[in-house]
Amino acid sequence: MDETKPIEWLNGRVRLLDQTRLPHEETYLILSDHRQVAAAISEMRVRGAPLIGIAAAYGLALAGHTVAATDRESFLTEIRAAADMLAATRPTAVNLSWALRRLLSVAATAPDVGAARQALVAEALRIHREDAAAQKQLSRHGAPLLPTGAAVLTICNTGALATGGCGTALGVIRTAWEEGRLPRVYVCETRPLLQGARLTAWELQRLNIPHTLIVDSAAGLLMQRGGVGAVIAGADRIAANGDVANKIGTYTMAVLAREHDVPFYVAAPTSSIDLATTSGDEIPIEERPPAEVTSFAGAAVAPEATAALNPAFDLTPHRYITAIVTERGVAREPYSESLSALCGVAAR
Amino acid sequence: MDETKPIEWLNGRVRLLDQTRLPHEETYLILSDHRQVAAAISEMRVRGAPLIGIAAAYGLALAGHTVAATDRESFLTEIRAAADMLAATRPTAVNLSWALRRLLSVAATAPDVGAARQALVAEALRIHREDAAAQKQLSRHGAPLLPTGAAVLTICNTGALATGGCGTALGVIRTAWEEGRLPRVYVCETRPLLQGARLTAWELQRLNIPHTLIVDSAAGLLMQRGGVGAVIAGADRIAANGDVANKIGTYTMAVLAREHDVPFYVAAPTSSIDLATTSGDEIPIEERPPAEVTSFAGAAVAPEATAALNPAFDLTPHRYITAIVTERGVAREPYSESLSALCGVAAR
Repeated sequence: MDETKPIEWLNGRVRLLDQTRLPHEETYLILSDHRQVAAAISEMRVRGAPLIGIAAAYGLALAGHTVAATDRESFLTEIRAAADMLAATRPTAVNLSWALRRLLSVAATAPDVGAARQALVAEALRIHREDAAAQKQLSRHGAPLLPTGAAVLTICNTGALATGGCGTALGVIRTAWEEGRLPRVYVCETRPLLQGARLTAWELQRLNIPHTLIVDSAAGLLMQRGGVGAVIAGADRIAANGDVANKIGTYTMAVLAREHDVPFYVAAPTSSIDLATTSGDEIPIEERPPAEVTSFAGAAVAPEATAALNPAFDLTPHRYITAIVTERGVAREPYSESLSALCGVAAR
Repeated sequence: MDETKPIEWLNGRVRLLDQTRLPHEETYLILSDHRQVAAAISEMRVRGAPLIGIAAAYGLALAGHTVAATDRESFLTEIRAAADMLAATRPTAVNLSWALRRLLSVAATAPDVGAARQALVAEALRIHREDAAAQKQLSRHGAPLLPTGAAVLTICNTGALATGGCGTALGVIRTAWEEGRLPRVYVCETRPLLQGARLTAWELQRLNIPHTLIVDSAAGLLMQRGGVGAVIAGADRIAANGDVANKIGTYTMAVLAREHDVPFYVAAPTSSIDLATTSGDEIPIEERPPAEVTSFAGAAVAPEATAALNPAFDLTPHRYITAIVTERGVAREPYSESLSALCGVAAR
């Protein structure tokens, strides 16, 4: 199969697969302005922590092209405003601010506007390349953790559609399957936006990996029946102590996994680790519009005026996590030491 | 507000609220044949363990009217065939076979076909009346269990739409709210058929009880934040040891409740207790069509040909259940004794 390319830099424009239209339509958006990129991130046309980092980077590279200022200081001021706008689109994934910081840093050290423009593009392309390489590495590190001959459960979408490469949790799954050790993947549909049903099932179908879709609330029964050998999820942000913010429902899967003595793994590039965040309590949890819960594909499912709470993420305390897989290796408890070591800094 | 009447016996016909059309349309079906009732149960136009018991009873009363046989033996043979058809519609809720057994028993003791016909109708009406009375009683027994001033979480629909009266878990909730002790109900939307979003939100809105809809997988975060004072669910069948079969997702809520030291209550009439079933392992779990998971309101949400597993129920082992509320009182561990006592038989 052709590799999925959810995002591409096309010489001054960004080509983006509109993931809200999947699995029924493969529609691409051509964006030429950072405001369009910000809107695409807010509307989740592009999603997945590593991929929105890349999208934000390309968004800022576009801003470098469109900002009219010719003097260095005004250019940097406008670029910083564009970065602020991109950073504000979604608060939970740290990859967004991490990527933007990298771009702002290279722009700030460029001698003039022309060089800054070029540096922004070069750094965005580098982030994309590095992320693809990281996914490949972390998949290799993670695959041996999955038990041979047992089905694996996953939530949300963490594959090629969520990253610049083969994926985080889904990259690990893919590698284990290529090794002939994985009989089946159970895919949580992942309400409210159904990234499991719409995106993960789509990717697994293209990869010919056997999979079965379940409603999120069926995971308990499945584990009770002994049908799950491991759970593996991605991460939107990992705190210094190993607490993980990820798609709503992840925490429930972790609690169920521990209740059934099933290992619970998190797979993420080190760009999702935020050592400046001491614990999960400090991670902002995005609240999305109630209409994502009360309606579906434009049609209301609840009575008019029904109140709904729609937290897009939840927090899994580190004590539920068997191991965290990154491109630099596998971290285990105590995470406050192992994550710092992976990130190459002394433990606090 | 008018009381909801999900089912009514209209002198030889059954008037049924088509619950698949809620919350947008209040459409009633007029059924004159037990085959139509069986189809309505299979298609979940009528649902909820107590209510499908009542529906099956009315279905068999209809069969009494339509069966052509004039001799007693042929009549009973045809009635038994109709009962078998009604019993086969859904395997998990025990109320179905319980109600049919009651009707078959009165028909068998009637002296002639005419008397048997009348007895079937009278017994169906009695089951309906008794269920309404049971819901009122169990609501009174259950309400004191709910903590004052704390929100309660519930799953599926267990109200007037699920029973012959004010409801089981939702009846308890309603009573606690009428007592001024319940600030809010969190309603799990209850995938795949969204009985929480479509039916429970509709009932609570009509009752003016403050409620907030969540996706099922948000229950973990909500409990982690301390926002839930108790969980209360219904039951489709309760085994002699206290294991409970109920809507898929109930077990997950029970595991989460225990993890967060939140009491987990089950509310059901004694007609849902099946002392002939020793433990939950013996309860058949209905598998429903995969299309309920892969599509939504008629529109596909997953790629074509995606495999899905769709267990309609799960099993909550008794050790997770703080108490079981019935119309005859509240049962606690050891359930093998307390349930038998409530049902008026010596413990096995």
